[in-house]
Amino acid sequence: MSTEDRVREALRGVVDPELGRNLVELGMVREVRAEDGKVAVTIALTTLSCPLRGSIAEDVRNAVQRLPGVSAIDVQLTAMNDEERARAFGKAQAPQAPLAESVNNIGSVFAVMSGKGGVGKSLVTGLLAVALRRRGLRVGILDADLTGPSVPKMFGLRDRPQPGQIGLLPVRSRSGIPIISINLFLEREDEAVIWRGPMVASAIKQFWGDVEWGDLDYMFVDLPPGTSDAPLTVLQSLPLAGTVIVSSPQDLAGMVVRKAARMAERLSVPIVGAVENMSYFACPDSGKQYEVFGHSRAEQLSNELGAPLLAKLPIDPTAADLCDRGQVEDYRAETVEQLGSAFLAAAAKRARAGAVR
Amino acid sequence: MSTEDRVREALRGVVDPELGRNLVELGMVREVRAEDGKVAVTIALTTLSCPLRGSIAEDVRNAVQRLPGVSAIDVQLTAMNDEERARAFGKAQAPQAPLAESVNNIGSVFAVMSGKGGVGKSLVTGLLAVALRRRGLRVGILDADLTGPSVPKMFGLRDRPQPGQIGLLPVRSRSGIPIISINLFLEREDEAVIWRGPMVASAIKQFWGDVEWGDLDYMFVDLPPGTSDAPLTVLQSLPLAGTVIVSSPQDLAGMVVRKAARMAERLSVPIVGAVENMSYFACPDSGKQYEVFGHSRAEQLSNELGAPLLAKLPIDPTAADLCDRGQVEDYRAETVEQLGSAFLAAAAKRARAGAVR
Repeated sequence: MSTEDRVREALRGVVDPELGRNLVELGMVREVRAEDGKVAVTIALTTLSCPLRGSIAEDVRNAVQRLPGVSAIDVQLTAMNDEERARAFGKAQAPQAPLAESVNNIGSVFAVMSGKGGVGKSLVTGLLAVALRRRGLRVGILDADLTGPSVPKMFGLRDRPQPGQIGLLPVRSRSGIPIISINLFLEREDEAVIWRGPMVASAIKQFWGDVEWGDLDYMFVDLPPGTSDAPLTVLQSLPLAGTVIVSSPQDLAGMVVRKAARMAERLSVPIVGAVENMSYFACPDSGKQYEVFGHSRAEQLSNELGAPLLAKLPIDPTAADLCDRGQVEDYRAETVEQLGSAFLAAAAKRARAGAVR
Repeated sequence: MSTEDRVREALRGVVDPELGRNLVELGMVREVRAEDGKVAVTIALTTLSCPLRGSIAEDVRNAVQRLPGVSAIDVQLTAMNDEERARAFGKAQAPQAPLAESVNNIGSVFAVMSGKGGVGKSLVTGLLAVALRRRGLRVGILDADLTGPSVPKMFGLRDRPQPGQIGLLPVRSRSGIPIISINLFLEREDEAVIWRGPMVASAIKQFWGDVEWGDLDYMFVDLPPGTSDAPLTVLQSLPLAGTVIVSSPQDLAGMVVRKAARMAERLSVPIVGAVENMSYFACPDSGKQYEVFGHSRAEQLSNELGAPLLAKLPIDPTAADLCDRGQVEDYRAETVEQLGSAFLAAAAKRARAGAVR
């Protein structure tokens, strides 16, 4: 028997917990490849409804790993296409509609993007939410960074999202900011989410449509770096009012950030403002400011993007420390309040411009 | 006529420059979807041979954009499957094998990864190559970060890769380091590469197999952040001797970096060493060291990963400045030489361990 056949046999032992039939019977095993002991399996799930489906991947991995001669296993999850679904269930079952969208009432949605990683996109997302929450606004955060999610740690959240009446309930921070992030679904915060694009896109859409966000004035979506699947899905699928672009003083960062800005332009999403992070380090002994990543290019960035500069944030060891402790909500600095005010002003201006158009 | 049909009609005006027939005739238009003026088109190319194929995407975009009622257009490129290829050309044409692999002789390949963006992965890749090159070793860099490529800028490279006898020739840096990066193919360095995963994976494989690298002692692969398509493709498809993991002192960064390390473990790629970047800032006035991103966790990181600490690199405005000017090869610092020595020692140790196993 070939390795491929032995793998398929082994997958008869893996049962879809919801449907109570094994993956082979259900026609879910779309592809099996084996080479030099390395096995790659693609499983087509009925829907990628919720990230908890990871347990099927785990079961597949365990079943195949045991086989003699298998040294490595890669499991890809994808969703059945209409044909596969029809074969498995007959034409009756239609694809599921987003669960909770009807009960959600979300004012304005803004994506926080940078293209380049590590410039402080998640910090800016967190600080924007904190600043607006302090003003009594209802703000939520959708963490669309599935492979490097930082929002829960920053807010000190570890609870799993619980099922609500219709969809999943977001987890609430101490000051009452509802948050959804893949890291809230993982057993260990440093577990890797090794998903290819389609699975990433599907999870983001569920975070939007299957979560009971309720009434919000603002939602911030924290994007991962790059201009590939996750940012593309957010810019194409969510009803964005605009994006906030984050950069750092390095010209090299600026180049990558401009790529992200171009992507937003191409997809007709307005840029409402720019934030320069890590602009300088204020020496605690002398008070002198050092531009440790080079000379600030904040004004230049703002001009290039045709968007107002919302803030120039310093490198602040206190902020880094509070984020590591999960206490970003305790961070008080004038720059945060200014960031909040500048954002609200820019968003209001953009909304008026949109209404006139 | 429905919008979908009008789009298909318009695509009859787009000709594959190489094959001289239009995309519809060639069966390349895999999918057209239209909703509220937003059009999504998937084009299946015969091979994703070279990133220059972007011009087809541009032509498609231009052809569709012109149609009345079309407000936005998203073009996805993918490769034909065997069935589509057979339909277009008859069974005769087999899928292409990597062009240049037979003439390449590449000693050891190491991926530089971090999971988290902005911790200095590209800088470490560059410095490793520079340090080894200074020792007279033959070193190449494959920039696998397609959506945020930083390597060419750091080395001051703008030339386009030229065709060689078999495949493409990498561009050589001043000190003779051959480099391939998507940014060398773009008209403008800040152009966005808005590709979903399969296209990203295909480009990386071509950078490996269709480029005439020639004889190299070492190759470094600069990975993008995250644990999705690009890192997955590199870890699965290239014959890696190991990875170098880069982190920064923030615990939050450490968490995301550990995700990347877990991914490497799962895919059985050994971690040969860890580098902590941005460990401290040495005040140029007083010489005092400030841990601006929190207390160094270098030893802890090294323990967790079970890999030696290769270097603790400071935040150095000189390095940032030289990278912005494309002169990373002129950066001279003791830490760089130490990084090179420590890497070579760790790689040699790992090679001996591998030979014994």
